[in-house]
Amino acid sequence: MIKSHPENFVVEVLTANNNADLLIQQAIEFKPNCVVIADENKYEKVKSALDKHDPSTPLGAGIKVFAGNKSIEQVVQMESIDMVLTGIVGYAGLASTISAIKAKKQIALANKETLVVAGELVTALAKENRVNIYPVDSEHSAIFQCMAGEWQNPIEKIYLTASGGPFFGKDPAFLSTVTKEQALKHPNWEMGAKITIDSATLMNKGLEVIEAKWLFHLLPEQIEVIIHPQSIIHSIVQFKDGSMKAQMGLPDMKLPIQYAISYPNRLPSNFERFNFMDYPSLTFAKPDTETFRCLPLAFEAMKKGGNAPCVLNAANEIAVQLFLEEKISFTKIPDIVEKTISKTSFIRKPSYDDYVNTDKEARKIAKDFIILLPSQKF
Amino acid sequence: MIKSHPENFVVEVLTANNNADLLIQQAIEFKPNCVVIADENKYEKVKSALDKHDPSTPLGAGIKVFAGNKSIEQVVQMESIDMVLTGIVGYAGLASTISAIKAKKQIALANKETLVVAGELVTALAKENRVNIYPVDSEHSAIFQCMAGEWQNPIEKIYLTASGGPFFGKDPAFLSTVTKEQALKHPNWEMGAKITIDSATLMNKGLEVIEAKWLFHLLPEQIEVIIHPQSIIHSIVQFKDGSMKAQMGLPDMKLPIQYAISYPNRLPSNFERFNFMDYPSLTFAKPDTETFRCLPLAFEAMKKGGNAPCVLNAANEIAVQLFLEEKISFTKIPDIVEKTISKTSFIRKPSYDDYVNTDKEARKIAKDFIILLPSQKF
Repeated sequence: MIKSHPENFVVEVLTANNNADLLIQQAIEFKPNCVVIADENKYEKVKSALDKHDPSTPLGAGIKVFAGNKSIEQVVQMESIDMVLTGIVGYAGLASTISAIKAKKQIALANKETLVVAGELVTALAKENRVNIYPVDSEHSAIFQCMAGEWQNPIEKIYLTASGGPFFGKDPAFLSTVTKEQALKHPNWEMGAKITIDSATLMNKGLEVIEAKWLFHLLPEQIEVIIHPQSIIHSIVQFKDGSMKAQMGLPDMKLPIQYAISYPNRLPSNFERFNFMDYPSLTFAKPDTETFRCLPLAFEAMKKGGNAPCVLNAANEIAVQLFLEEKISFTKIPDIVEKTISKTSFIRKPSYDDYVNTDKEARKIAKDFIILLPSQKF
Repeated sequence: MIKSHPENFVVEVLTANNNADLLIQQAIEFKPNCVVIADENKYEKVKSALDKHDPSTPLGAGIKVFAGNKSIEQVVQMESIDMVLTGIVGYAGLASTISAIKAKKQIALANKETLVVAGELVTALAKENRVNIYPVDSEHSAIFQCMAGEWQNPIEKIYLTASGGPFFGKDPAFLSTVTKEQALKHPNWEMGAKITIDSATLMNKGLEVIEAKWLFHLLPEQIEVIIHPQSIIHSIVQFKDGSMKAQMGLPDMKLPIQYAISYPNRLPSNFERFNFMDYPSLTFAKPDTETFRCLPLAFEAMKKGGNAPCVLNAANEIAVQLFLEEKISFTKIPDIVEKTISKTSFIRKPSYDDYVNTDKEARKIAKDFIILLPSQKF
């Protein structure tokens, strides 16, 4: 996208967790001012590839290379940056997003956990620093696109659509038997392992519900999840006159990323177009909250408020990791989340430090369910 | 709607064709400055009911009563009027809409023929007089709603949805046998006889295609008709980034009328809300242009331009009238339209008078097809 519209964007910083090769390749292409590799073991590799003080190379005086999570928090504050696209997965994205907001950088938010964990604090900080948070999640981008020209018109409710994941229509007995391989096969979207499992449990939709609450200032009862297996309608807003607006298209993350950066304008693209003849029927169903218990757990945590969503997220990150390590069965994921919420201390108005401590406490409690049963599959 | 939001609107003028009772009833409720009854034979009845110079009645000094089409053209120019809702059916709505535009009144356009017949002239006049034309047709309102906040973003294409009418899925042999009663049963919308027949032939969608061309400054190839039998998605815009926005809801004309008047704001309403559980499947199909020939005829007239759409409309008005009088069969409607277009003189850049003469000429030619065959059903 940036490649197609070089006149509109300058890439100042690129970061990566540990994929040094991709970072090097992208840096050579987009020539940022600096790059950060979170994994400090990869620092020398990246530095030797990019930081060449050889004026005859295409990189000229070279690209500055930093390493470690702290460096990410620092570089997002660079004066030359207007907008930060936060793509770090999980709780780990919170600190750098807050750092960017405090430096008054506009945020393109691909890290939903930032708002799930600390929505109240982050939205207050954004308001204080006059920072807009542009959603990158396809569902929230859909709502955001539908809200163009409508911000003066109160939302009556939103429908977040969910594909239903690979186990849509299955019952709890089936779910207790599913393997890691089955859970990692998403019908419509290609994503990382964590979010793919979250899609299979519907926890991903639960996290998105909480994210939507903060992005669009909604009450829990204004948010409804609807299963839409084709993933063509990305979400829907209903206004107080009863009119509904939906944003549609083929499932492709390039569009919401581009829109977050180009808003309120749209840039021409060659992304594949939707064709009704390929989807003669778009279907809808109520989610099965008896089978997919992560979804009602997320709604409960949202209603409870305080640090409850932070606990939900931490427990879920641990539970998914344990499932991916094949230490627990698929249906134990909501069990661990539910038990962790009931055992972690509740804080009604958490500070940033409270969130950090809650996250630690919840992870420890979640892990303890396994330690209690070391010799058998939980 | 005006009843629910009396603080936002004042009704200055009410008009009716010949329904004197409804005009009197609405005048007593909304207390306009004046009313016009087009049918001059009903003048005395309306006048005696409303024009009471008795200060003790709720009407106080009474409501001024006028009669005749010329009076409609005059009252829409009244200084106290901001917006005119043009609901006259057919070619007959053109003159009063032009009169209102010249008097710089904002237009809520329910009379699609105004743009079908004379789109180039009317949009030029509207631009010259800084008049906005707010669509009231549900499909165009849908596009207009989707364009809120997006006017800077060029449209790639629009999809106008069509229910398909009562004969969706039928073949030409079936169509040649249908009765007036069958054609008057629309599956989703309750409307007048003319537009209900137009929906059954798909000419209504053809007229809407031409209307959309003028409202949204589109090329013919940017407009696609898609059959959507549930009439829940009212139409769709696709932008140059590939993103699509749709407006949805139960089929109910109250919403687009209210939106045209309240735009860019939305007023709370108690219109019935859409429920996905009542429509678990939304379906789409390509229109059958071999069977429903009025649709490609409208596309051809739009591409030809000039006075061709005016001829199309005039011939269709006559053909539908003949069908309603049971003088021709259903499949003769496109025959008459096609033959009339081929026989009427083509004018590339018509003036207003050219449109008036074209309309007369086309109606005469269309009627002649019957006169040639007086003794048998055409």
